[in-house]
Amino acid sequence: VAVVGPAQADDDLLALAREVGAALAARGAVVVTGGLGGVMAAASEGARRADGVTLGLLPGTDRRTGNEHLSVAVPTGLGEARNALVVRTADALVSIGGSWGTLSEVALARRAGTPVVSLAGWQVLDAAGRPLPGRVAASATEAVELALAAASRGQGC
Amino acid sequence: VAVVGPAQADDDLLALAREVGAALAARGAVVVTGGLGGVMAAASEGARRADGVTLGLLPGTDRRTGNEHLSVAVPTGLGEARNALVVRTADALVSIGGSWGTLSEVALARRAGTPVVSLAGWQVLDAAGRPLPGRVAASATEAVELALAAASRGQGC
Amino acid sequence: VAVVGPAQADDDLLALAREVGAALAARGAVVVTGGLGGVMAAASEGARRADGVTLGLLPGTDRRTGNEHLSVAVPTGLGEARNALVVRTADALVSIGGSWGTLSEVALARRAGTPVVSLAGWQVLDAAGRPLPGRVAASATEAVELALAAASRGQGC
Amino acid sequence: VAVVGPAQADDDLLALAREVGAALAARGAVVVTGGLGGVMAAASEGARRADGVTLGLLPGTDRRTGNEHLSVAVPTGLGEARNALVVRTADALVSIGGSWGTLSEVALARRAGTPVVSLAGWQVLDAAGRPLPGRVAASATEAVELALAAASRGQGC
Repeated sequence: VAVVGPAQADDDLLALAREVGAALAARGAVVVTGGLGGVMAAASEGARRADGVTLGLLPGTDRRTGNEHLSVAVPTGLGEARNALVVRTADALVSIGGSWGTLSEVALARRAGTPVVSLAGWQVLDAAGRPLPGRVAASATEAVELALAAASRGQGC
Repeated sequence: VAVVGPAQADDDLLALAREVGAALAARGAVVVTGGLGGVMAAASEGARRADGVTLGLLPGTDRRTGNEHLSVAVPTGLGEARNALVVRTADALVSIGGSWGTLSEVALARRAGTPVVSLAGWQVLDAAGRPLPGRVAASATEAVELALAAASRGQGC
Repeated sequence: VAVVGPAQADDDLLALAREVGAALAARGAVVVTGGLGGVMAAASEGARRADGVTLGLLPGTDRRTGNEHLSVAVPTGLGEARNALVVRTADALVSIGGSWGTLSEVALARRAGTPVVSLAGWQVLDAAGRPLPGRVAASATEAVELALAAASRGQGC
Repeated sequence: VAVVGPAQADDDLLALAREVGAALAARGAVVVTGGLGGVMAAASEGARRADGVTLGLLPGTDRRTGNEHLSVAVPTGLGEARNALVVRTADALVSIGGSWGTLSEVALARRAGTPVVSLAGWQVLDAAGRPLPGRVAASATEAVELALAAASRGQGC
């Protein structure tokens, strides 16, 4: 399961991300992120504290740019194209908070039919101003439950 | 300048895309797209009719999947990761209509600071429900003018 | 048709590359390269002088790193992973001179079944010390003829 | 440390690969491969039997194409462009046996200055027919020692 979110985030989002990471690890899921700071680091930290495995797919070519909570770091050297790899590597996404990079990952997942659960995230309206349907969670626990349930059903959107 | 939009689109959007392609070509801009059908093909068709140069960055490895209006087709074989290349290749994006693939390109461009002009596109609200600021055009002509002006200033957002 | 070769090359190789580029353009082929200097720039220069179309697939994200002889430059931002795109974009490769980057492109083409013609290139021996079979040309003209013939037959190796 | 080699390999090469994987794991190195069969699977199998961590960077988008000995599988969806990621992820390469795909990885590593140790591999001659210098090992143990020593010195070629 991938956890995506901004590299700059306030304490509330970081706490949520740590909680999500820990809950995923407790359920045996590998936590995949973009490997940098903010939400990515917090989710990885939470997962590692719960004895989980964390994978960071870095945009650059230098492994040392990864945060300190990664079991395995892949310096893809693809820049933001690595967002597509984060999405491909996951059976489901938990999106925490909003940023343009985060939205690109949500959009790529929706495009690919990979389930996305949103926590405190941006919303998207269609051209007529109607909200696009999507999974929204109110807590870290709910987000992880929804994500794992959708992933196990191999069910998109 | 890249023109991004859904592979399935109604006649109004296709007409807009042809008009945008023609206007870009008339102003001497290379029209970059994802190389497939719908908005991508219509923008390329409009540009070629106006004697423009069109570049298609295809997701697959087979050049023959490209539409017939491409001066140059690059079968990247990167899947949807090619969206990042469409964005990198352009000094500005014109987004026509909405889809998750289109939104991923808009988000990657905003992330990179590449100017985006939206025509009949999806809207994005932040976590507090406020619309995120962005360039919106009411016509093909206005979209092209805004895009070229922003590109020439090397000005993002 | 792609022309691959080192970014640093002596005058003889550069002259060969210009000749290959010109001959490809005269035959109507688009000349694809990695977009930088040395053999890449010389092949593009030769093609442009013969009114050909040249495509440069750059490793970085800045179009201005491309040489001045490119009709279209794609700043892929993929680093050396762009070598795979050079290979995919071409129906045949002409390899001029030798370098590790050049060899990676030759190897990727051989792996994909794309025809390769070698001019003054490195040779590869199998584990038993036997030369691996491949197309070798003695002149620019012969290289272009072999490449176009193999490309038109869609014939690999 | 990455172990690269052909997907089709005879029993001797597979035994070597298992031995290399086990020796790397015993020394605490993560074993990175292209994630498929042959040498890639054998190296991963050896590493896992020695309680090591294995990472497979797959060319396709389906994790299930990975061999059964992977701790973590990344379905990059990049095709053979994933070879560049295998190289970037490693501090050193052990190359076992020869194939065009394998040679592309060796060449990309040499291009990037990442140390390569060859076991029963192909050889490369320059345009004048002289062998290009490189690290060659006579046994799995020697290969692992050379690779780890070079990696720890951060020393290329």
